[in-house]
Amino acid sequence: MQTKPTLIDCQPPYYVVTFANKKTATQQGYSETLMQILALAQKQKGFLGLDSCSNAENFGITNSYWESLADIKNWKQQSDHLIAQNKGKERWYECYTVNIAKVEHSYAFNSGE
Amino acid sequence: MQTKPTLIDCQPPYYVVTFANKKTATQQGYSETLMQILALAQKQKGFLGLDSCSNAENFGITNSYWESLADIKNWKQQSDHLIAQNKGKERWYECYTVNIAKVEHSYAFNSGE
Repeated sequence: MQTKPTLIDCQPPYYVVTFANKKTATQQGYSETLMQILALAQKQKGFLGLDSCSNAENFGITNSYWESLADIKNWKQQSDHLIAQNKGKERWYECYTVNIAKVEHSYAFNSGE
Repeated sequence: MQTKPTLIDCQPPYYVVTFANKKTATQQGYSETLMQILALAQKQKGFLGLDSCSNAENFGITNSYWESLADIKNWKQQSDHLIAQNKGKERWYECYTVNIAKVEHSYAFNSGE
């Protein structure tokens, strides 16, 4: 479970993929596939980091950060393939929304600094 | 507590503000101010919606959606003022990151459709 925001180690412009989702009650195989996907993402060209959070109502948000649109497209093809090889997104997600957006400004705050 | 992704009722381009945060143990006054801020946001010019989620470790993500950069700037000035009038963000947030990004593509999936 993530406990702190991810600091992206570069300046804009870069890209964010926002993924807001409601999971179904059928989560068989989900956590294993999620672990595989996260491990795969971290090896991808252009991957900068991610923030991910879910609540007790099976609602979650994952924001992943990428260097370019081409990197996102490449990653989508790989991750879709991996999911299809497993149980299929329709079993795990009741609904979701995705936005692909170009980050123009970013800033951070840390009370310890 | 949010249970489903927010469907934005317009096509890109629009803007998203991603806010990933770690809250402190000192949450006195936080929930009241959050309610005020969310009520205020929904009345703002250019506000399109938001997705918000937090976990048991006090880590959270809020993505808010806006028509334009000018709307975001206007909202930031108002919300900063409201927060300053209350306890101050330094009491509630240990750290956070913010990205302001232009949405170029979006899509949604709903298993009921």
